[in-house]
Amino acid sequence: MKITALKLHPVAIADPPLRSSYGLHAHYAIRTIVEIETDEGIKGCSETYGGDGPMGLLKEAEQRLIGMDVFQLTRLHMDFEARAAAEASGDRSQTWHVPGENPMDRHTRTFAAIEIACLDAIGKALDKPACDLLGGRARDAVPFSAYLFYKHAGGGGLGDDERDDEYGEGLTPEAMVRQAKQMIAKYGFKEIKLKGGVLDPEVEIETIRALRREFGPNVPLRIDPNCAWSVDTSVMVGESLVEELSRGGYLEDPCASIEGMGEVRKRLLAKGIDTPQASNVAVTAFKHIPEAWKHDAVQIVLSDPHYWGGLKAQQHLDHFCRVFGMGLSMHSNNHLGVSMMAMTHAAACCPYIEFACDTHYPWQTEQDEVVAGGRIPFHQGSVVIPDKPGLGVELDYDQLARLKERYEKLPYRKRDDEAEMRKRVDPNWKRVLPRW
Amino acid sequence: MKITALKLHPVAIADPPLRSSYGLHAHYAIRTIVEIETDEGIKGCSETYGGDGPMGLLKEAEQRLIGMDVFQLTRLHMDFEARAAAEASGDRSQTWHVPGENPMDRHTRTFAAIEIACLDAIGKALDKPACDLLGGRARDAVPFSAYLFYKHAGGGGLGDDERDDEYGEGLTPEAMVRQAKQMIAKYGFKEIKLKGGVLDPEVEIETIRALRREFGPNVPLRIDPNCAWSVDTSVMVGESLVEELSRGGYLEDPCASIEGMGEVRKRLLAKGIDTPQASNVAVTAFKHIPEAWKHDAVQIVLSDPHYWGGLKAQQHLDHFCRVFGMGLSMHSNNHLGVSMMAMTHAAACCPYIEFACDTHYPWQTEQDEVVAGGRIPFHQGSVVIPDKPGLGVELDYDQLARLKERYEKLPYRKRDDEAEMRKRVDPNWKRVLPRW
Repeated sequence: MKITALKLHPVAIADPPLRSSYGLHAHYAIRTIVEIETDEGIKGCSETYGGDGPMGLLKEAEQRLIGMDVFQLTRLHMDFEARAAAEASGDRSQTWHVPGENPMDRHTRTFAAIEIACLDAIGKALDKPACDLLGGRARDAVPFSAYLFYKHAGGGGLGDDERDDEYGEGLTPEAMVRQAKQMIAKYGFKEIKLKGGVLDPEVEIETIRALRREFGPNVPLRIDPNCAWSVDTSVMVGESLVEELSRGGYLEDPCASIEGMGEVRKRLLAKGIDTPQASNVAVTAFKHIPEAWKHDAVQIVLSDPHYWGGLKAQQHLDHFCRVFGMGLSMHSNNHLGVSMMAMTHAAACCPYIEFACDTHYPWQTEQDEVVAGGRIPFHQGSVVIPDKPGLGVELDYDQLARLKERYEKLPYRKRDDEAEMRKRVDPNWKRVLPRW
Repeated sequence: MKITALKLHPVAIADPPLRSSYGLHAHYAIRTIVEIETDEGIKGCSETYGGDGPMGLLKEAEQRLIGMDVFQLTRLHMDFEARAAAEASGDRSQTWHVPGENPMDRHTRTFAAIEIACLDAIGKALDKPACDLLGGRARDAVPFSAYLFYKHAGGGGLGDDERDDEYGEGLTPEAMVRQAKQMIAKYGFKEIKLKGGVLDPEVEIETIRALRREFGPNVPLRIDPNCAWSVDTSVMVGESLVEELSRGGYLEDPCASIEGMGEVRKRLLAKGIDTPQASNVAVTAFKHIPEAWKHDAVQIVLSDPHYWGGLKAQQHLDHFCRVFGMGLSMHSNNHLGVSMMAMTHAAACCPYIEFACDTHYPWQTEQDEVVAGGRIPFHQGSVVIPDKPGLGVELDYDQLARLKERYEKLPYRKRDDEAEMRKRVDPNWKRVLPRW
């Protein structure tokens, strides 16, 4: 089954004013829906980062893909890896890059988008769900977590596209408990992750404590300031939240770098505090894992099929973490239903994922879904692997056209949370690390 | 596609009196041909170690397998892994066990045999070669090496089964050069591995030197004494063969244990000698790799789909070694054409294998092949992935019946090279490590 065409559908999706240490989410998040066509008339799709960078890399790959057998992914991977090796420089951390804009993983991301579309096509040709093409599933449903964000008032989008502010402003512990209750009522999530690094650490500590008081010790809690804190502040937060982050919780990227996280770990252990640290900022590639292990810096790796290299790479990572005695969870960015299903299939065929995965999906809306038939449903906080081939979704071409039109009107072609923060909140705002 | 039956075909195959540090090969090597039948009428096969141990473990798995969808291997793997974890003790090295008789990897071996048979069945159902079910091939043909053994006169088998002594006695450097020339003339191999640990190290050094003189610097040479040497002797051999083991050569398991090999490496490096060390004795499982890496003990891992856990595990290992900057090659035991093809498909879908793989196949004969149509052909030292589904072979049931009958007459049910050595060469022989 040979690829006959590669189609790229850029889309812009309404996004609320969510905050993180990188800044502020713009009115629209951008994504790319990737579609391959084959000589058997079967199509495959995937979803990846949006904007000129990711689109340009995919366009560059077009000639390599036309005529390629969708089953022959190993050689394609070798080609991308050879390019990456030839161009490599820098440390590939995401300390200063949002995922999707890290030049160090650009070939990995591009390969992932193609691999997932090929697996979707293979699944459709063989009438098998994607996870069952990869050795089969470890689970039939994948649990996700309630991913809370401090946010300004506003529902995302502009003008005719403007969305209801479903969750309202969230800049206090009380508002965040309300956000969590509302999201859990709607989706049934059983674990909670708070995006931190936004407000004073004392407020964020109090937010986590308020969540623990509300939901009790059986709902694991995580906090992720995206390395906004110093080693000292990270240790202070770890000490303050020793009880709240226990029982399935973790401290995610409290400060920058493997060395920094190793130091936090050492100092917390010296105080008898064994709260695991997770990372998707310091650890973004396989080569980081032995180093993180040597420094005992990271106990849980946050995978992501989009930038770790696809579903097969996700399985390698799952196995890798097992060997090192590390835990595995999954990172997310704003995404639509195609990524939702790619993430679900990825987690389904990874036996060692023991944490509910991140997803931004609750922050997007039905009006912006590109999956035919509408949004992917959650059952008690989990997405069930459907009894459909490939990723289990078909594209809605009317929606793709509408969201592409919207994309074309946008003045930006990459995600820049810092610029957005200056534009809408504070003209002098700069990302400073550590901020506290 | 569900499994409806598991059939086990024990076979005994004539084997010449090959020597290693474990002792002497018996007149017959034993193997098990594994066959699954499915509700779609499609069968799948694999080949694994022979005798009561491996057969018993496979029989135990039968109830778990009947009714299992051949695509659902992840959950099966999880079950075997849970059993292995519950029973684990000991270090899993093969210092004192021949492969196939190491109790520490018994569940991994059992899973591998089933996984490969399932992949064969899936390939036949989908009309795809096995390597293309696993992301596709990195190469269309897999190079193997001329695997030389010191041997006594004799061709294997007994009585009516007795085989011609194709290679004659091989107990001197000159005889080994003759053996190499003969094997290379027949198969076209371009790399040479010498099984050592049999004669005085000075004789083995001279054998390697004679091979280098005969074949020149473009035919990589390896020597594998299966940890027969002390650290001192290993260093002495490494020094003596610095030129001969360069350019694609390696020193394989010169002494026992990761610590021992780390010491050899340190002392050789201190003398400016960078000959890589390979292992399939000290390193037999994923957990050994970080340890071997920490000690810089092993630079090349010898994979083996039979005891590392199948084709998918082989791909994990390939990826693992890449991340650690280690090389990858492949170990072998006496085997027939089914294993020959499993090894070939395994190596085909592993991009980072850069060495010709080991194979004992030249030591077996057409008369004992269980593959319909006869022996797997070599082309210039390589096995080409055939344009056939699954492993690319069908079983010859007449041959299976004949070799099973032979197996049933054997007085032994496990490989015991030490007993054989006592019986046929030296009644007082004992495996002593280090011997030199």
